[in-house]
Amino acid sequence: MASYRNMTAQQLSEELNCVKQEYEQLKAQNLELNMARGKPAPEQLDLSMEMLSDISSLSGVKSEDGFDCRNYGLLDGVPEAKRLFANIFGVDESMIIVGGNSSLNMMFDVISQAMTTGLGGEPWAYNKNRKFLCPCPGYDRHFAITEHFGFELIPIAILDDGPDMDEVERLVKNPDVKGMWCVPKYSNPTGITYSDEVVKRIAALKPAAKDFKVMWDNAYAIHDLYDTPDSLANIFEYCEQFGTSDMVIEFGSTSKVTFAGSGISALAGSENNLKLIQGRMTIQTISADKINQLRHSKMFPDVKSLNEHMKKHAEILRPKFELVNSMLEEELGDLEILSWINPNGGYFISVNTLPGCAKKVVELCKEAGVVLTGAGASFPYGNDPLDSNIRLAPSFPSLDELKKATELFCVCVKYAALQTLLA
Amino acid sequence: MASYRNMTAQQLSEELNCVKQEYEQLKAQNLELNMARGKPAPEQLDLSMEMLSDISSLSGVKSEDGFDCRNYGLLDGVPEAKRLFANIFGVDESMIIVGGNSSLNMMFDVISQAMTTGLGGEPWAYNKNRKFLCPCPGYDRHFAITEHFGFELIPIAILDDGPDMDEVERLVKNPDVKGMWCVPKYSNPTGITYSDEVVKRIAALKPAAKDFKVMWDNAYAIHDLYDTPDSLANIFEYCEQFGTSDMVIEFGSTSKVTFAGSGISALAGSENNLKLIQGRMTIQTISADKINQLRHSKMFPDVKSLNEHMKKHAEILRPKFELVNSMLEEELGDLEILSWINPNGGYFISVNTLPGCAKKVVELCKEAGVVLTGAGASFPYGNDPLDSNIRLAPSFPSLDELKKATELFCVCVKYAALQTLLA
Repeated sequence: MASYRNMTAQQLSEELNCVKQEYEQLKAQNLELNMARGKPAPEQLDLSMEMLSDISSLSGVKSEDGFDCRNYGLLDGVPEAKRLFANIFGVDESMIIVGGNSSLNMMFDVISQAMTTGLGGEPWAYNKNRKFLCPCPGYDRHFAITEHFGFELIPIAILDDGPDMDEVERLVKNPDVKGMWCVPKYSNPTGITYSDEVVKRIAALKPAAKDFKVMWDNAYAIHDLYDTPDSLANIFEYCEQFGTSDMVIEFGSTSKVTFAGSGISALAGSENNLKLIQGRMTIQTISADKINQLRHSKMFPDVKSLNEHMKKHAEILRPKFELVNSMLEEELGDLEILSWINPNGGYFISVNTLPGCAKKVVELCKEAGVVLTGAGASFPYGNDPLDSNIRLAPSFPSLDELKKATELFCVCVKYAALQTLLA
Repeated sequence: MASYRNMTAQQLSEELNCVKQEYEQLKAQNLELNMARGKPAPEQLDLSMEMLSDISSLSGVKSEDGFDCRNYGLLDGVPEAKRLFANIFGVDESMIIVGGNSSLNMMFDVISQAMTTGLGGEPWAYNKNRKFLCPCPGYDRHFAITEHFGFELIPIAILDDGPDMDEVERLVKNPDVKGMWCVPKYSNPTGITYSDEVVKRIAALKPAAKDFKVMWDNAYAIHDLYDTPDSLANIFEYCEQFGTSDMVIEFGSTSKVTFAGSGISALAGSENNLKLIQGRMTIQTISADKINQLRHSKMFPDVKSLNEHMKKHAEILRPKFELVNSMLEEELGDLEILSWINPNGGYFISVNTLPGCAKKVVELCKEAGVVLTGAGASFPYGNDPLDSNIRLAPSFPSLDELKKATELFCVCVKYAALQTLLA
């Protein structure tokens, strides 16, 4: 089919009539599908069931250095869990604090600490003009944390190789700019990975705020779809070079490795940052759930076992990503009404409709029984200035459901585009 | 033996020589014992090992309403875990939020929320004169949280029936007084339980600060040593009567029911408070570890199973408490140099030496190889104005170790008392 851009009004109008019919037919199917959130599918969760097998022996609850993990202690985690995350992040074990079940919670707590008691500077709460850089489209829950704590959220464009660093370098000259959110590998939702050059420029930042923090959420560090994955530079190596190690805190979890919500999380940081963070944690809790740390460490005693496990996830996820990609290509490839990136990993496919169409598409899908992430959700304050971006989450539905949902989605994209082009 | 108070200087001096010899003999044994913290003993942890048995079937990971607990969701917990805590607290399930592995963390988060975004009023951070009431001797980690957040800690005497309510009623007239810590049953460390009258007076408070919060840490709700346990009135029933339900938040955990650090925690509160707290939690995390909630719910399907389990704990703990009590009685009972309460539950025996002796006793014990909680730890800023209180934690050591440690402790109490009386 030819591009909608080259059609006459008459042709567009005829096309609209066809698309309307298709839409009504699909709507009549009373679908109930959901492509809204990056949840693992049940088949992926099944991959980790051995982690729930019997450990009701004393050897099952002692860490490798003999600590009885059924009791209080070890604020920063058991050694073998630290090693697991050291491998995932590519840093030394001494840089790791293992947390509870949620890396988001660790990020929230770090921002909260910086707000209330400071993290290498005055409490951020004292600064009424505090701002945070939000590369976008980005992760809505990141933006929500800084919005919750009263930051002005400053959108930064995400380019093909990472955030617009010219903008970032310009903005960090303002001492009210306190930090920056990053999902550096398979960025949520665009799926791009920051280039070495971008990672280097982030590490080289000289922000006016001495306690500026790069929230380096390496959520998809090992979540590759292919054997030729994207490669992310190690930001801490660059930081060492530029003397900026206190500027970056890295986060991650096993939520999309084992169980979403029953995994373990960790952060990595400089000696100064770990000291500050542990200083707060020692007031906040006695330790995270170390038995769950042991479960994970036993399941992944080495990098090899972890890699093999992640390949099994990829085998389940890859067909889903490829299905959506091929359907978008087939249905919309020539129409010039949708652009998207086909990622090498992560959990999302980010698409851009014609300006002004995203909300319409989401609404049309919803009316026909397919829930998508709200249009604009990937932008600060939920405000996509072009009303163009939609985040598709293909992981949870079955292939069959995904096919139906994507079919509807394609029709809705056409429907909204035609209305816009005819308006 | 007669009271030291009735001895002549000559008699005291002779006694000091004897006690010195005893001390040196015990010191020569090179003991390495610890009565510092309220940790469960390994035998207590063994009671819950069945909780770690195989649940690697789908039925093992679904909540009673069919939710797949391996995946994201259920911010406030699975229904059966809510019911477990509803039974422990004696409140309706609708009042419960189930949290992660640490009730201390839930308390920290509530105070942090009140600081940063408010909990029914302006953020407390805006008030530079903020103060918190600290019944003492009390729980050092409570006081540490409010100290961390920059509150002035105001000591309130703990009497035999709870905090000195005349003082509390007087102080809450100051709008800078934002809340109050309470361990209402088997109070940490004195072991007393608040009387009905005290609970009623707390519920009837009319603080000048409209967002005043009673942090009701019911840590030892079911941790009885005897079949005739102390009985704690239900504060929420009184609150309803006085229209003060938004003033109280109750906390608890299974840390001393199953595993310390790998249990589950919960809070109970009014509809308004739950709404505010969930509003923050929805930004902070996606859910707590629901699989661990299921483990607990399966182990304790009803009140009966929970009660039977707690009786097993009591059977292990009771001989330890009775040993310490009988040794104190035998060694020091007539000397009038130590007073203490023999509690019906909880994890501590709180003792009072002669004024000015507590630090000496702890130091003497330490030099001879027995670690006690630091003297003064149970007071705001670690400052016991009388230098008299010491918290003994008999739960962790074996009976044999406990006997040796208590023997040494008694000698050290005599030693310090004699030095003081002869000074």
